[in-house]
Amino acid sequence: MTKAGKLIYITGGARSGKSSFAERQALRLSGHAVTYLATAQAFDGEMRARIERHQSDRPAEWITLEEPLDVVAALQTAHTPTVLLDCLSLWVSNLMLAEREDGEVLARVDDLLRHNSATLIVVSNEVGLGIVPDNALARRYRDLLGWANQHFAAAADEAHLLVSGLPLRLK
Amino acid sequence: MTKAGKLIYITGGARSGKSSFAERQALRLSGHAVTYLATAQAFDGEMRARIERHQSDRPAEWITLEEPLDVVAALQTAHTPTVLLDCLSLWVSNLMLAEREDGEVLARVDDLLRHNSATLIVVSNEVGLGIVPDNALARRYRDLLGWANQHFAAAADEAHLLVSGLPLRLK
Amino acid sequence: MTKAGKLIYITGGARSGKSSFAERQALRLSGHAVTYLATAQAFDGEMRARIERHQSDRPAEWITLEEPLDVVAALQTAHTPTVLLDCLSLWVSNLMLAEREDGEVLARVDDLLRHNSATLIVVSNEVGLGIVPDNALARRYRDLLGWANQHFAAAADEAHLLVSGLPLRLK
Repeated sequence: MTKAGKLIYITGGARSGKSSFAERQALRLSGHAVTYLATAQAFDGEMRARIERHQSDRPAEWITLEEPLDVVAALQTAHTPTVLLDCLSLWVSNLMLAEREDGEVLARVDDLLRHNSATLIVVSNEVGLGIVPDNALARRYRDLLGWANQHFAAAADEAHLLVSGLPLRLK
Repeated sequence: MTKAGKLIYITGGARSGKSSFAERQALRLSGHAVTYLATAQAFDGEMRARIERHQSDRPAEWITLEEPLDVVAALQTAHTPTVLLDCLSLWVSNLMLAEREDGEVLARVDDLLRHNSATLIVVSNEVGLGIVPDNALARRYRDLLGWANQHFAAAADEAHLLVSGLPLRLK
Repeated sequence: MTKAGKLIYITGGARSGKSSFAERQALRLSGHAVTYLATAQAFDGEMRARIERHQSDRPAEWITLEEPLDVVAALQTAHTPTVLLDCLSLWVSNLMLAEREDGEVLARVDDLLRHNSATLIVVSNEVGLGIVPDNALARRYRDLLGWANQHFAAAADEAHLLVSGLPLRLK
């Protein structure tokens, strides 16, 4: 039940190069022995195109798991030394859309931190640096993801902010 | 009329850990001898909940002043060695909603910088890193807060950007 | 056809002090021998006011070129040792509004990187750190500018993120 694996936290805005940076880190740490744990769900053609574009960028030898909600269970089926979770922000969004309460979402996030035995590289998003959104759901998501990000960043051994494809070391 | 106190400027996005970081700095500098100068006004239940959640996180011995508009006068009534102003971004918003012109808002901001004799810790927000907002009021706020932030950051002895709860030193 | 000039990339949010920082760099490097290459187009009074406010801040000796679309050709007419391009983000927006495809926009961006013989200082914007925009055009712009920014930042000799008027060195 205790965290043993190394945690690398990578955050940034949309199209800031987070996923590419995370993939380079995974490749450097474990070569082809990487599990890619995807939380994305293709609701429409735009999302499907994003997912496929990302897939074709990754080494063919990597194992891909797709799990929008029960990410903790999926992580426990991974047997590679490194797991890349892409991304925390969609996982939080999926849990919210599945009508989980805030406390439950954060409890799942903390579960993940406790059940991690591999080296875990986590990609997330910064969504709180614009004007306050008009709609309440977007404000709730912004708060909830902000807290989830803080939990991960606090527990992380390394943390990086990506800006225009370049990393800034946070920790 | 001249600034004598130390100025610590803390900025970041929503839920980036700015207030917690500012409170830890205040506690470290002055223990229980801190005035907390709040600019928040509770217009609705959501805002009231935010204010109360923040209050319960602070030491009970801290003196709390609430002042949405005349922050300069409120600051002069404080007698503790450290004052924590949370936050500049709501103060600017309050002044805008009270129909002050841009020049007048920035003049008030500069007054604060001149009348500060305590150690002043100021929390603000970054709101300019999203897509250009559709409505003109939001764009005006984004500009005005951006200028106010620049005035404070330029005058600051220390400046920090919070990301996912972790500080990046700006100055 | 090969890039020979130095490239300085400057990014940040709205009102973060990017243009002022870029102008100070240009002044420091080349004094009055600077070409200011503006991509802004005044569609309305608000934009015209922004353009004029910026112009009056710059040295009168600087040469100003205004070119919303064919920035590569405009750059080749510049004969000063330093060119300041302000800004990449509006150029990308102008190309999108002129109905160029994504691939064509990025090809133009890469052309600029290849045809640069002067010291080129490029200002851009970070627009991907807020909530995902509702409208598809804004999402497309966010993606496209993110990629353009990554191309410039990767090619840059120096890169800076401006926050509240203060620079963070990215590279």
